[in-house]
Amino acid sequence: MMGRVDISKIPNIDKINYNGEYTPDAVTPKSEVEMPSKVLPSIRDAIIASGLKDGMTISFHHHFRNGDYVVNMVMDEIAKLGIKNLTVAASSLASCHAPLIEHIKNGVITHIETSGMRGELAEAISRGLMETPVVFRSHGGRADAIKNDELHIDVAFLGAPSCDVLGNANGYTRDETGATMCGSLGYAKVDAEFSDCAIVITDHIVPYPNTPLALPAVHIRYVVEVEELGDPDGIMSGATRYTKNPKELMIAKNAANVIEHSGYFYDGFAMQMGSGGAALATARFLREKMEEKGIKAHFALGGITGQIVEMHEAGLIKKILDVQSFDLTAAESLKNNRFHTQIDGCFYAGYDYKGAAVNALDFVVLSALEIDTDFNVNVLTGSDGVIRGAIGGHPDTAAGAKMSVVVAPLTRGRIPTIVDKVNTVVTPGITVDVVVTDQGIAVNPNRPDIIEKLEAADILLTDIESLKVRAEKIVGKPDPIKFKDRVVALSLYRDNSIIDVIRQIDEDDEEE
Amino acid sequence: MMGRVDISKIPNIDKINYNGEYTPDAVTPKSEVEMPSKVLPSIRDAIIASGLKDGMTISFHHHFRNGDYVVNMVMDEIAKLGIKNLTVAASSLASCHAPLIEHIKNGVITHIETSGMRGELAEAISRGLMETPVVFRSHGGRADAIKNDELHIDVAFLGAPSCDVLGNANGYTRDETGATMCGSLGYAKVDAEFSDCAIVITDHIVPYPNTPLALPAVHIRYVVEVEELGDPDGIMSGATRYTKNPKELMIAKNAANVIEHSGYFYDGFAMQMGSGGAALATARFLREKMEEKGIKAHFALGGITGQIVEMHEAGLIKKILDVQSFDLTAAESLKNNRFHTQIDGCFYAGYDYKGAAVNALDFVVLSALEIDTDFNVNVLTGSDGVIRGAIGGHPDTAAGAKMSVVVAPLTRGRIPTIVDKVNTVVTPGITVDVVVTDQGIAVNPNRPDIIEKLEAADILLTDIESLKVRAEKIVGKPDPIKFKDRVVALSLYRDNSIIDVIRQIDEDDEEE
Repeated sequence: MMGRVDISKIPNIDKINYNGEYTPDAVTPKSEVEMPSKVLPSIRDAIIASGLKDGMTISFHHHFRNGDYVVNMVMDEIAKLGIKNLTVAASSLASCHAPLIEHIKNGVITHIETSGMRGELAEAISRGLMETPVVFRSHGGRADAIKNDELHIDVAFLGAPSCDVLGNANGYTRDETGATMCGSLGYAKVDAEFSDCAIVITDHIVPYPNTPLALPAVHIRYVVEVEELGDPDGIMSGATRYTKNPKELMIAKNAANVIEHSGYFYDGFAMQMGSGGAALATARFLREKMEEKGIKAHFALGGITGQIVEMHEAGLIKKILDVQSFDLTAAESLKNNRFHTQIDGCFYAGYDYKGAAVNALDFVVLSALEIDTDFNVNVLTGSDGVIRGAIGGHPDTAAGAKMSVVVAPLTRGRIPTIVDKVNTVVTPGITVDVVVTDQGIAVNPNRPDIIEKLEAADILLTDIESLKVRAEKIVGKPDPIKFKDRVVALSLYRDNSIIDVIRQIDEDDEEE
Repeated sequence: MMGRVDISKIPNIDKINYNGEYTPDAVTPKSEVEMPSKVLPSIRDAIIASGLKDGMTISFHHHFRNGDYVVNMVMDEIAKLGIKNLTVAASSLASCHAPLIEHIKNGVITHIETSGMRGELAEAISRGLMETPVVFRSHGGRADAIKNDELHIDVAFLGAPSCDVLGNANGYTRDETGATMCGSLGYAKVDAEFSDCAIVITDHIVPYPNTPLALPAVHIRYVVEVEELGDPDGIMSGATRYTKNPKELMIAKNAANVIEHSGYFYDGFAMQMGSGGAALATARFLREKMEEKGIKAHFALGGITGQIVEMHEAGLIKKILDVQSFDLTAAESLKNNRFHTQIDGCFYAGYDYKGAAVNALDFVVLSALEIDTDFNVNVLTGSDGVIRGAIGGHPDTAAGAKMSVVVAPLTRGRIPTIVDKVNTVVTPGITVDVVVTDQGIAVNPNRPDIIEKLEAADILLTDIESLKVRAEKIVGKPDPIKFKDRVVALSLYRDNSIIDVIRQIDEDDEEE
């Protein structure tokens, strides 16, 4: 039986008695006692030490967003070492990762797993660059897949703005103002914990112990110091813009009204706000309503912005659960506020782990590229069929929250947002409760409880079909996108089943 | 290959396209979305739900010290269920656990693993109560053994002063003043992480999310609420007494002088202080020296007392790594101070994990029941051969710290502390650097560097043999303890090799 010392198997137990000469293997003479260092001189050395071989899976996190240098630095070194046929399992990829195209062409990378993809790489993938389809997973699905070893990571390369020689790492450093800072390392925590070999790449080696910490040294095998981890502007750009767009403000006002009267706006509610302009503005209108009514939130979840932090610091939100800090204010708050807690991807949104934080949400406000008349949402492919987005926590929070509110303009330029069939299903309609546009609000018919509450509050509702018709009236019905048969990517639901495929776009038409 | 979707194995991939009717298994209708609760109505229910069976291993933590009700409550329920032949793997046991004797007699418990044992249970074990020897491990050794599955825990029963319905648990609650409080749950963290089924037993179910947290819900299977976890006085008693004993003050003064001149007292040092009277007093004298010289510690480690907290709050210690809070001041500090961090047993002292915090220590001050002329230390058995102590982190810190200082009175009553051979080797002499008594200081001859530094500072040194002779001169040479051949317990070193055995005491003499 495990855990029990089998006395009969201990040789000569009756004769064991310490004779003053027995030196356990574990004893090191004091002159040799040193705090061990896991620091290696270069990324190249760390790759070699990791034992990375052809065919393995490596991972990266996306907390440096479009400012990230880590992915490209590491891939260049791997390519120089002649290692081929790798799977890159990133928590997400951004436009700055266009150099991966070369590594794909050269056979260094033969498969990609990610939450999202944008820019030249996404364009190339959409046009058939890779033989094996890219796998898109939600943040919760990815965390589960790693935890369950469905997605096995051989070597994780994890950028961190501070780390001690043992590997205790965090998303900020206290040693220098203006240093690289990304706040939460929530997604990286899962990679560190479950990969066979986790390597921290840092621009600040700080004294042991680097506490409080995000990645505990026990999960880290090697540490490498580099000059720069990324472009600070790219790391923190993009998320928190404060919209002045009248359409977005209108949507936000509508969304806040819906929330106010939905039955989920009570003292002690829990919420998540996406990072789009309308979602952010919704938080502003909600704040006004909270102050008016004296209502406070128990916690806010997810990607965290400065707006949430300001509400926390004003006493309107008791606790923050932060899997990803969207701006510098959020990162500073994580560093300084005791009830702003860094959580990992499983804690946030794991499907397999029934008690994920998303299940405690009263409501979530989410963006969309397309919504169809079955309430299915696409946040992955554009109206031309090209990949230009990320699944993120969209399906996780939509399913977990008691009410999911999807906000979007009815049309974008000449493109309708409400359509018959979305190009790519990311979030199934059965989990989408309310669609709020600048031109009307539609509640999923499977939520008569919400419809009843909103009608009682004299909120004007329409239906999703009418929104589609109105959109088509404004911009016309777009021609269907032409696709080839070839599948270039898979859209996985949060349980890691395939919910949709993305096909190669067909541009041959123009030549016909 | 793991982690790669094999496209050829996806049936009919060319035909997959979301048709509006596909409902992934993971989708729950919103009306059924609920934050799941892991709360079960009673300990009995949790035991049944855990699947606990004859022959399994269960675990407990000792953060409630001698005030603990959890071990006895749980064992009573297990006994009522008729489950037998269990291994109890506690992080430590105290006098309050005497009721285990009945469970041993009844065959419910047939093996014990622990760091320490006192009182009636220890007396009974020393007299041969159990067939299989009790296994004593150090805190670091136990953490490693659990992590490496050498000690496999089937079900962990972990008392926690606060917990939410998902299992996020902590060693204090913010909801009520004067509630049960133990501070760090450092040792319990390992059990929660690596056991097959971890059950939190709490007296405060608090709103989700119970952040900051000690035990993350992802590691917890069930939660049970009970009236009382323990006796608050017992939970926090005993540790921080402020000695007025002149002998202890003398020892402390000597120890502080040794440290001051050892070369390890510099700006930015790292230290650990045991909880004995002399060790605590040493901290007080060190504080004076730090203030005089303007020297600050980078961190303090280990079992944490109010004294360490006061130094932290006065700016004399930058960070605290707390595996166990010894008093209320320490527990309050853990709750409120941002750089007072809760660490687990592996982080603290793991041998297998080369980067344990003990390896970063400049010095540690430790107590002893006996020290022999080879510098071996016994903290487990008394001068009568009866078990009455705990290994704790003694061998871990002695081996890890650049200098280990063992403080003890030369004699206790009629008992010499310095002897030819310790009853039970816990910490091997090769790792013990300085022995400080009220009657003289001896440095291990394998540390000529320390001898040189202390002599240069005109600190009077003697040798360990002379200390032994002096002790014998005062109290005489005690008669050797009579033991039977039968082994009743094993003393394991931090690498979990057997460093010594404890034999049944032989009391037949009196009858002869």
